[in-house]
Parts: sequence; C-alpha cells; structure tokens
Amino acid sequence: MTRNYKEITRAEIDQTESIDRINLINSCTGYKSANLIGTRSAAGQDNVAVFSSVVHLGSNPPLLGFVTRPTTVPRHTLENIRETKSYTINHIHQAILFDAHHTSAKYPREISEFDKTSLSAQFRENCHAPFVADCPVQIEMHYLQEIPIEANGTILVIGEIKNLYVQEELLQADGFIDLVKGKVATINGLDAYAVPEENQRFAYQRPKEK
Amino acid sequence: MTRNYKEITRAEIDQTESIDRINLINSCTGYKSANLIGTRSAAGQDNVAVFSSVVHLGSNPPLLGFVTRPTTVPRHTLENIRETKSYTINHIHQAILFDAHHTSAKYPREISEFDKTSLSAQFRENCHAPFVADCPVQIEMHYLQEIPIEANGTILVIGEIKNLYVQEELLQADGFIDLVKGKVATINGLDAYAVPEENQRFAYQRPKEK
Repeated sequence: MTRNYKEITRAEIDQTESIDRINLINSCTGYKSANLIGTRSAAGQDNVAVFSSVVHLGSNPPLLGFVTRPTTVPRHTLENIRETKSYTINHIHQAILFDAHHTSAKYPREISEFDKTSLSAQFRENCHAPFVADCPVQIEMHYLQEIPIEANGTILVIGEIKNLYVQEELLQADGFIDLVKGKVATINGLDAYAVPEENQRFAYQRPKEK
Repeated sequence: MTRNYKEITRAEIDQTESIDRINLINSCTGYKSANLIGTRSAAGQDNVAVFSSVVHLGSNPPLLGFVTRPTTVPRHTLENIRETKSYTINHIHQAILFDAHHTSAKYPREISEFDKTSLSAQFRENCHAPFVADCPVQIEMHYLQEIPIEANGTILVIGEIKNLYVQEELLQADGFIDLVKGKVATINGLDAYAVPEENQRFAYQRPKEK
C-alpha cells in the first residue's frame, strides 16, 4: 500500500508555534531511551529527573553520554554531577511511568522528587548518588567530561560506567539484557511512553555471497 | 515483589569477553532509536546503514546528532557525508526489520546495500542522498559539524533538519508523530528489534501543590 507523506519544509518548521515544533522535532528521531538520572548535591539534597537522551558511546571503556540544556535555567542534575562527579542511570519501567514523567515538573532545588512521587531512593555502597529502587537496570556512573555543542549551546555529558545492576531474569548468557522481560519503557516525543511486549534478535550479518 | 539483582562490577565488565561485553553495554542504556542513514558519495555510489545512536539535540534550530566509530575501518556513511554534506535519516519499521539489520554487514564501498536487500532508494528534489522508500518518517539532513569524543575516539556528527516527510496518518495536530501507528521499531542492544503496540501520553507536568 502506498502511503501519502506530509512534507514539512524547514521554513515551515521554523514558523511552527513553539510547543508544536518541540513535539514534532522531539518525535522525529524515533523512539528514545527512557531513564531516570539520580543525583545528590554535595550538601545532601537528592534529585531525580527523566532523560530521553542517554546514548551509547562505547563499550571498552564503557562510556555513556546524555544531552542537557544550557544552564540558562536551573539544571539541578548537571549542578549535582559537577559538584560530586556521581550519578546513576535507571531504566523507566511499566510500574512507574507516570511518576517518572512527573519528575519533569520544575521543583526548586531544595525539593526532592523522591518526596513528591512514589519513586524510592536506594543507596549502594561507595556511590554518592541515589539509585531509583526497583528499576530493572541501575547504572552507577562517574562523570568524565562535558562537551559543549556550539551549534545550539547544549552540552553532551560523558561518563564511565562503574558498576551495573541488572535484575537477574533479564540477563542472558551472552551479556544481552532483555528489556522486554523488564517491562522497560521507551519515549516517543516529549510525553508519550511505550512498553514493547516482544522483540526479535537477528544474527551477526555478513555480506551475502554473489 | 522484590527482584534479585546481578551486580556486575567495572572490573568484571573490563574482563568480560569482547562480544559479551559489547552485548551488555549496548543493552544497558535502554531502548535506542532505529534508523537507516542514507548517503551517496560524490561519485554517485549509494550507501544505507543501520544506526541506533541518533539523538535529539534541539528543536530551534532543529538539530540531530549521531555517534559513529573511529575511522580505523572504512566508514562509508561518514565518508559520504563529509564529501557531500547530505544524508537522510529514515525510521526502521516492522516490514523491513531484517533488511535493515542486514545493512550492518561489511560490504565494500562500491556495493550498495540497496542492491543487496529489498530496501529501495527514493530520491527527492534538491537532496543528493537517497531516502529509504516507504519509511514512516524520512528526514533530509544537512551536515554541520563533527565533534570528536576524546574519551574513546568516537565522533558525534551534528546536522540540521532541512525537510521532513511524515506519513500523514502518523502526524497529530499538535506536531506529535505517533510512532506506534507507523509500526516504528526500537533497538535493544546490538541485534534485537521491538515494535511497540501502544503508547500513553501524559500532560505537561507542574509541581504538585503542598
């Protein structure tokens, strides 16, 4: 079946009203990772916030990045990471979708989102930042560097994985973490969450013979 | 229900056999975007390759990034983008999962993956690079810059959206693109694909009253 396309030119994108443009451009990359980043300030104030920009940078050493907005408004996650070098990445899953989304509300820094939602902070040995209890995957991160993105003033924050906590039934013998088994969510745009129910693995691909 | 966690320390990660480590670290970010990047060399040789690292950088101007490996082995997508500044990002969907994955096979540069799969190149006015026909979302991109990531020698490639093509039934009045309606896929790890069947949108969140 041939489907019709709506063409949206760059001029039309630039003229689109702000929230519609944000919805459109945030949806157009496809599905995004759905994570809660946990931090604690040097003074002991906890913060947890939803991020959809965590990206794999490399496996050896194990490095992850995430993108954050300019510092023109308070950005508690980034401030806490700069102060302490410590943060956690926790997978959003079926049971906490709404509470995870609610962490996007702009609370003042002295309020912990753990106190405003049913999300629970969990502390593990030698890690300053809080994990989010019961998340299928919890990652202890150590801040390495920030890369400013001149094109729009955002920042790529790069960290290395210290320790990794995976619910046992998700982990397969070859290292694969089965996100379906963990009812892990993925984000569509700014505000939509989907929980895939099945997946399909393919073999390593080699060129076809002539 | 309390679930048990498997703790994997950084020392254990570093000692893990290569392919198992790659599976583990590629799975640990959660779901990733599933895209085909289409390019054409200055000499007219087409290329299409699967990427799971496309990330939203900003909406005004509309900027997207993707991460690519060092240039120690041939990287045709990056070479073509450097030569022509033109590339397309196309959403992987249910009907093309295997062919999309097959583009990860290492063909020599003079072979087009369009000739080795059922994927069809589609050309649109004023865009040098090929789109992948019938993808629910097709994005015409213009290369802006590369940011080297010193920590592991990968590269963040940044581009701006020129024109956007969205299958009409996916696009909602507020700009939201409903990826479920397009049977768009998401990637788990290196080689698993999931197609979410439903999603849930939440309202913009404001702090709760005391």
